[in-house]
Amino acid sequence: MITVLAGGVGAARLLRGMIRAVPAHEVTAIVNTADDLVLHGLSISPDLDTVTYTLAEAVNPETGWGLVGETWQAMDALEQLGGAAWFRLGDRDLGTHLHRTGRLADGAGLTEVTAEITRAFGIDARLLPMTEDRVATMVTLSSDGVPADGATEMEIGFQDYFVGLRHDVAISGVRFDGIDAARPAPGVLDAITSADTVVVAPSNPIVSIGPVVAVPGIGKALADRRDNVVAVSPIVAGSALKGPAERMLRELGHEPTVVGVARLYRDFASTLVVDSADGELVDGVEAEGMRCLVTPTVMTDVGVATDLCRTLLSLDRPVGSPAGRPR
Amino acid sequence: MITVLAGGVGAARLLRGMIRAVPAHEVTAIVNTADDLVLHGLSISPDLDTVTYTLAEAVNPETGWGLVGETWQAMDALEQLGGAAWFRLGDRDLGTHLHRTGRLADGAGLTEVTAEITRAFGIDARLLPMTEDRVATMVTLSSDGVPADGATEMEIGFQDYFVGLRHDVAISGVRFDGIDAARPAPGVLDAITSADTVVVAPSNPIVSIGPVVAVPGIGKALADRRDNVVAVSPIVAGSALKGPAERMLRELGHEPTVVGVARLYRDFASTLVVDSADGELVDGVEAEGMRCLVTPTVMTDVGVATDLCRTLLSLDRPVGSPAGRPR
Repeated sequence: MITVLAGGVGAARLLRGMIRAVPAHEVTAIVNTADDLVLHGLSISPDLDTVTYTLAEAVNPETGWGLVGETWQAMDALEQLGGAAWFRLGDRDLGTHLHRTGRLADGAGLTEVTAEITRAFGIDARLLPMTEDRVATMVTLSSDGVPADGATEMEIGFQDYFVGLRHDVAISGVRFDGIDAARPAPGVLDAITSADTVVVAPSNPIVSIGPVVAVPGIGKALADRRDNVVAVSPIVAGSALKGPAERMLRELGHEPTVVGVARLYRDFASTLVVDSADGELVDGVEAEGMRCLVTPTVMTDVGVATDLCRTLLSLDRPVGSPAGRPR
Repeated sequence: MITVLAGGVGAARLLRGMIRAVPAHEVTAIVNTADDLVLHGLSISPDLDTVTYTLAEAVNPETGWGLVGETWQAMDALEQLGGAAWFRLGDRDLGTHLHRTGRLADGAGLTEVTAEITRAFGIDARLLPMTEDRVATMVTLSSDGVPADGATEMEIGFQDYFVGLRHDVAISGVRFDGIDAARPAPGVLDAITSADTVVVAPSNPIVSIGPVVAVPGIGKALADRRDNVVAVSPIVAGSALKGPAERMLRELGHEPTVVGVARLYRDFASTLVVDSADGELVDGVEAEGMRCLVTPTVMTDVGVATDLCRTLLSLDRPVGSPAGRPR
């Protein structure tokens, strides 16, 4: 059994390889929900949906999120009404949000609703939200980004930062509102405890993996399994393949390299997998107390993703296995 | 200034004629909101939308509701997820509901949101919800329609009856949940008080006009203007042109004719306009204390609707006017 801590696009691509490396029903993903939002009354879970659509081979390959062949009638109509259309919801994608919102209103839990959605999409892997409680990532804009109205700082919701401002502003802080009261969703702790290997997907360490680990109980469960926790660095050659991970690390005082990632993960992961481009930083990672494996991690296609997953899962094999030797 | 009490399709067709009979900016519609529902988290106002889409010449002419040329991607996706898709929401129509829901969540009132929507649709007439407070029509199924589970009666929401069961079951009661606490929306009482003529559109007397009149304050305001209130019968030759009005009247103990309509309206309307097919019932209507005007009321096209409105508005002209003489 393999358990993957997951954010959005990077995690989805890793999981797409994972269900080829091992039988899909042996794979559980614990997915970040701190990006979730209620918009126009609809409950939207961006990371759950990105993983779902990707595993169903239904994702838009251009963006890495949303559905392929999507139409935009509802958004066009909303824009003509002057409504807030900055968060783009495709027509078929809206079907997912309508279903989720309706079922939650019926009293179903997000775990149950997620299972319904993944089943309908023909997905054999198990997707679990990290929690069924509301957690909301809040981003503090640094003083540079704040309007000169006397306020010394301004805190906004994650999607306002990520989508609304296209993460094109400097930030000075991130917090997860509600995290102290959040409980791991049903099945989450067991998925960590009982996994042969826990994989931390190459997602944003601050706002994707960060909230998952911060849910009370999850961080401890991971630390208890540290020897079996393998993380894949989302930073390659000092930059993020997608999204603001590099910039966020830097602005929040972390080193925007695999060494900085190692410092964030070393308490609960024993191995960091870094891309071949970062081979020279292996000593730096090991100095943080983590094993370091160098292998191609840039998932340009599903074949690379599958190979990466096979390599991850062979880490505990005897030295000299074809999967590569941890240094 | 003309004020029209409005339900859905029948009222929309009358209003389409009214804005041709008089300048559109002189027309105010007070629209039933007791059919409104929250579905999948979205705030849906069927009657407001039917009137809006019709006045914008954007309504689906086949159904009389929804948008012409609509697409159904979201509903298809929802159905594939096993979601409740019995209340059909087209993709562009969803844009309206997303906008309304978002604006209400922002704290805007339904009157303000309705004004935004009608403005965006290029409508010069003024649409007012009857109230901004929640009122919900509840329908009691008669014992014939109740599952044999020991329950003696079963009450369901209006849309469950109207759309879900296609009003194809017998009913024994109707009530408007929340009506006692409902306040007329801003502008409603003034629109009645200051109108030259108040027209009761040919909508369902029980569930469309009924709730409007039942909002505390509206019935009294209408009664005070009784001499200037003209109603158009939705019942023609003993049946409803659309919807369950005839059946509801009968099942609730009312005479399903223009005479039965007169009994429901006589307290607040002085004139009932009936179709030429009901000429023989004029005496019966007058016996209820209402004037009765006989004229074509079946709005097969906008020309008939416009003629009907011109006739309505000429009622107070001197006898012998071209619009027809009230008997």
